[in-house]
Parts: sequence; structure tokens; C-alpha cells
Amino acid sequence: MIKRIAPDVEVIDITHGIPPQHVLQGALVLANTLPYMPAGVHVAIVDPGVGSERKPIALRGQDERLYVGPDNGLLLVAAERLGGIAEAVEIADPSHTLERISHTFHGRDIFSPAAAHLASGVELGKLGPALDLAALRRLVVPEPAVGEARIRATVLYIDRYGNVQLNLTAEHLARVGIEPGSRVEVEVGFERYFASAARTFADARMGDIVVYEDAYANIALAINRGNAAQMFSVRVGDELRLTGA
Amino acid sequence: MIKRIAPDVEVIDITHGIPPQHVLQGALVLANTLPYMPAGVHVAIVDPGVGSERKPIALRGQDERLYVGPDNGLLLVAAERLGGIAEAVEIADPSHTLERISHTFHGRDIFSPAAAHLASGVELGKLGPALDLAALRRLVVPEPAVGEARIRATVLYIDRYGNVQLNLTAEHLARVGIEPGSRVEVEVGFERYFASAARTFADARMGDIVVYEDAYANIALAINRGNAAQMFSVRVGDELRLTGA
Amino acid sequence: MIKRIAPDVEVIDITHGIPPQHVLQGALVLANTLPYMPAGVHVAIVDPGVGSERKPIALRGQDERLYVGPDNGLLLVAAERLGGIAEAVEIADPSHTLERISHTFHGRDIFSPAAAHLASGVELGKLGPALDLAALRRLVVPEPAVGEARIRATVLYIDRYGNVQLNLTAEHLARVGIEPGSRVEVEVGFERYFASAARTFADARMGDIVVYEDAYANIALAINRGNAAQMFSVRVGDELRLTGA
Repeated sequence: MIKRIAPDVEVIDITHGIPPQHVLQGALVLANTLPYMPAGVHVAIVDPGVGSERKPIALRGQDERLYVGPDNGLLLVAAERLGGIAEAVEIADPSHTLERISHTFHGRDIFSPAAAHLASGVELGKLGPALDLAALRRLVVPEPAVGEARIRATVLYIDRYGNVQLNLTAEHLARVGIEPGSRVEVEVGFERYFASAARTFADARMGDIVVYEDAYANIALAINRGNAAQMFSVRVGDELRLTGA
Repeated sequence: MIKRIAPDVEVIDITHGIPPQHVLQGALVLANTLPYMPAGVHVAIVDPGVGSERKPIALRGQDERLYVGPDNGLLLVAAERLGGIAEAVEIADPSHTLERISHTFHGRDIFSPAAAHLASGVELGKLGPALDLAALRRLVVPEPAVGEARIRATVLYIDRYGNVQLNLTAEHLARVGIEPGSRVEVEVGFERYFASAARTFADARMGDIVVYEDAYANIALAINRGNAAQMFSVRVGDELRLTGA
Repeated sequence: MIKRIAPDVEVIDITHGIPPQHVLQGALVLANTLPYMPAGVHVAIVDPGVGSERKPIALRGQDERLYVGPDNGLLLVAAERLGGIAEAVEIADPSHTLERISHTFHGRDIFSPAAAHLASGVELGKLGPALDLAALRRLVVPEPAVGEARIRATVLYIDRYGNVQLNLTAEHLARVGIEPGSRVEVEVGFERYFASAARTFADARMGDIVVYEDAYANIALAINRGNAAQMFSVRVGDELRLTGA
């Protein structure tokens, strides 16, 4: 669709691997990835509410990046980390979408056409009426509970290696005394494992459980050359407890 | 291969997700997708007969689109929906394929080189001898059996959400009195389920079974935020029966 | 990352499907694929040693192709088959990588930026100090044991059809008297199967086990329209024995 409307525009796929319905996961992958991408019109679609009254929206960031997607919070984690939103509109003008809009595939019928028009130079305001920035839907990114010696963390993402990304930074670990070189006790449900805090996999032996700062400055859990998510039987949204040991 | 022969040609991937050997599924995805794509040289390969006497072919549509693939019916559903075929040739000229042709990878050795030459402006007739349009292999797209109150339908496609596309249109449903808002009884093997005919998922509650018109104007079966194919244990080619309830 | 540094460079994805840690499999896919690709800067990353003292390297082939990846042997099978290496450097100059390098994602932080700079015309020598070609890490590609009537072979690769690629060529088979048309006994663990040596799947009936020369001139094992890897329960690295029958 994009190439039909804007043949000279370059399309870069970030991923088609977000599991169906996982809006928060999509929002976090977008926020982690965009800082490394060229600025452009960023289209993201994880859209369980397609066909409902949820609005299709387009945003302009303070840094002039443009965003297109559903008004379900998907775009805002990225846009706010990259400096905030300057302008928002509802995509409503029928001359910038397909003529016949299906009830279930707005990626094809609304979002891609609108993005193609924006990439061709159409002004944001032409797509539809302005929206109140404060009224845009926002996601709740789960916060960890940091106690005196123990942290309760939530699984945000599992990558294709089975590495388990948590809603923690190195600063959270430091508050309970965990730093590179420390032993860490990891509790998952009724099970308890011992891990080491490491700078990288190479600091650990094959099969060791490692707590490390990943490439997006999130704390993650891995098994050196193994699959941590499988071994711990954890899924996105699950809770883990970490204690300095 | 395409980029080696025609470096300036743009390559757009529709999908690499057709299951091995599923020629009909490939044909239907192609037919559903092409109307939304820019016109071009459309290469499609699902080719269980590779290495046999089945011919590699190239077609020109009435609308000037070009098609390249095996003569097993894969290309024809799309080409005929888009206005029919004007000209067909067997790809036989060795100067428009790789010099050494393997017995098992004609995508690389025949189809991509031929497509690249067509995209660079080579005329269809240069690829090989003309073929009789009537002799091209055609697929049988299964037809539903529409009774007075009941329809016997076949599963054509299952998407990554587990939504089950049937060989039905809204018109078939109307003939047995099913329209948006109706209750529908769905029989799969010995099991019986109750669904509602809906315009979109948003008309249903989470977990509801929904019969709806999908984005390609086919009737499909879904579970709102769930996986219908898994729940019904159906696969492509399976039969379902729908009754207005 | 590549597009940020070199917006006009064209990026062609060969595959993102190499299983984690499978360096030899990555090396063989690269070696099989590059002869059919346009020359360019070839980036390959299967990198279990990321964050260790293994060096990030860039190579120039005798044929002027450039290679970027980890110094773990991944690049060398391809580079040596394509004429050998003319020059090698360690990627060390911080002006050709990201400023902040993570411990776990050198694809983003080192390899892609370096490749983008090379593709933009930066000379190989600018990336860092020259390396001794003889000191580059090499992989051991397993050799078959060819006896008088029997061959012990190793599984190198399993494709998406479940076809099982072995470390054999037609010449190895000929040495034990197996040629197209022969019957072949295949032993996997304690199980024994009968296959036929065929030129292509079309020479066999549906469900037949076939030993054939694949599109990369390797001998492979397939089940006509079935999944051989699943039926034999074999994985990459497993051993099989073939006997003319």
C-alpha cells in the first residue's frame, strides 16, 4: 500500500514478530529501537481494538519524527522518550485512506495510506481534526517494587534467544546491593535459582544463569548459550523476585 | 539473483509464510494481495513439482501486470481476478535463466532470473515459446454447498491470529438467513459451537466466537482475542457446517 | 543503523533464520548463498562470544568483496570458497562504530556501523589495525568417513522443508557405488531405512525417501512431499550411515 501511494519512499521493517494483542510489548520494542533508526514516519500496529471506536491517530514529535497507529498507547512510550509529542490528529480524512475501509485490517486501509501520504509531504493537519494531547491513551509500564534487599520485577519481553528482559535498570539492582560480580538469588513461583550478575555472557561459563544489563540498558536474565525463558517457564507479564545472595 | 541481474529493480516481499506444498493457499494469498500492490512483475513459487515436466511459465495480464512461476495453477487465480491473461510463454530461453539449472531450486535458477529480465524491459516473448492459454493448469477452488438452512464450507486459510478463512461470502450467509447480529451454529466434526455474526471483533466480548466478513470480503471465523483454529482444531482444507440459530 | 550512517546504501537480507549459536550453520549458508548474490559488503553475525575478547573483524576478499563479522570462523568458509582473503583488520576505530558499545549487541553497535562506513567508501584500513591472515579463527567443517561400501556422514543443515543436507557430494556417493537410480540403505542410530538415489523429487513417489544432489551440490536426504528431519529425528551435527543396497 505504501509503495502504491508513495513509490519513492523507502520502507524499513523493524519487526513483524510482536505476538498478537501484545500492545505493551510492541510499545517497548518501538521505544528501544527508534533511537537507533533514521527519523521518518514510524508506523506501528498492534491493534486488538480494530473496528471499535478507538481512533486511528498520527503524531508529530518535538523532534519532527512522525508516528502513525492506533490510539491505544502503542506509539506514546517511544514518542515520549524521544522528547515528547508536539501535535496529534485523528486520521479521518477519506482522501488520505483507502476508499473502502474494512472492519479488521486498518493497517492496509488506514495506517499505511496515511503514513504514505505523510512521507510524501502531506501536512499532519490535513489527515484530520487535532486531538488533545492529554486525552491520548497511555499504557501503564509496570514499575518494580524495590525493597531493602529484594526486588519484585516483571518480565517485559523475551527475545528469540530466550533472554528475559525485566522492568529494571542497573540503578535498581544497586539499591539492593547487586552489582557486577555479585551472586543473585532469583525466585520464580516456588522455584529458586542462583545467578551471577555479569557484564556480559563471556564472564560466565556455559549454562550459568546471568543477570546483566542488556543492549537497551534494561536488566535481563539469560542462560549462557541456553534459553532462560524456557528453563524458568516464564512469559511476558510474569513476576520474578531478585535478592542479593 | 534479481538484484544481480537488475540492480535498480525494487523487490517487495509479500510473504515467505506459505506452508510447503500448499499451492492453493499460495494462489489465494496472491489473489487477495495483488489488488493492493503496485503493478509489476509478480513472482510466486509454491512448487511441489519442481524438477518434473511441469513447465516454468510467464504470463502477461490484460492489465499489463506480469507473472512468473510454475505452471501448477498458482498464478492463475490472481491473474484471472485481475482481468484475465493476455499472453503466456514457457520460460525456456537459456539466456534468461541461470546457465546451470539445479533440479530442486528453480526459484533461484529460473524464476528469479526470468523475472529480473522482464523487470529490466525484456519482452515476454523473448523468454520462450508461446503457450495455449486454455492448456495452462488451473486449480479447483472448493465451492461451498449452500442448503436451505445450512452451509457446508471449507477452510481456505488460517492467518497468524488463528482466524479461519472460509470459502464463503456475505452473500452465501444471507442465503441461509445469517446476517450481522444473527446467532450461528458452527459444527466442526462432532463438536458444535455457538457464534455470533458480527461486523467486527469490537461487536463481541472477549472470548466470543465471531463469524465476520474479513478484509478480503471472505467470511471468517475468529475468537475475539483468541485463536479459533486452535480451539476448533481445524486445518486448511477441513470442512465446517454453519446453520442460522 | 546502516541506513542512518549510509542512507543511500541498499540492504539485502539473506536470512534471519540461523538458530542461535550455530556458527557453522551460518558459515555454510553464507558460503552457499554468496555466489548468487551481488558483490558488496557482506555482514554476518552468529556470535556466541559477543562481549568476550573475540575480535570484531572486517575482511577484503581477493575478488574485492568485503566481509564484516566476528572472528569466530563465520566469514571464512565463504571468503575462502570465493577466492580467498586479501586483507583483514580488527574493527577498533571508535569513529566507525557507535560511541557507546553494549556488551551484548555488537550487530547494532559495531558490525552494522562498520559495514555502513565501508559501503559508503571508507577504506578497510581505516577501521583498525591489520590482522595476520593466518591467525584468523577457522571452523572445522566435518569430513565424511568413506569406507569401501559405506559412508559415515554428518548433518550440516536442515531447511524449512525438513530436507537434511549432508557433508557429502555426488563424488563421495560414487566412491561407494551409489548413483542416480541406486537403492541406498540409510542408518540413523539403531534405525534403518531404504531410500532411492534420485535426480529430483519428481523421480520418486509421494512418501519415498530420496537421496539427491541439492541446489548447492551437496547430497541431501528428503521425503517426497514430507519432512525427513522429523521422520528420522535428526538434528544438525548428527551422524548418518549410507550404504549402497
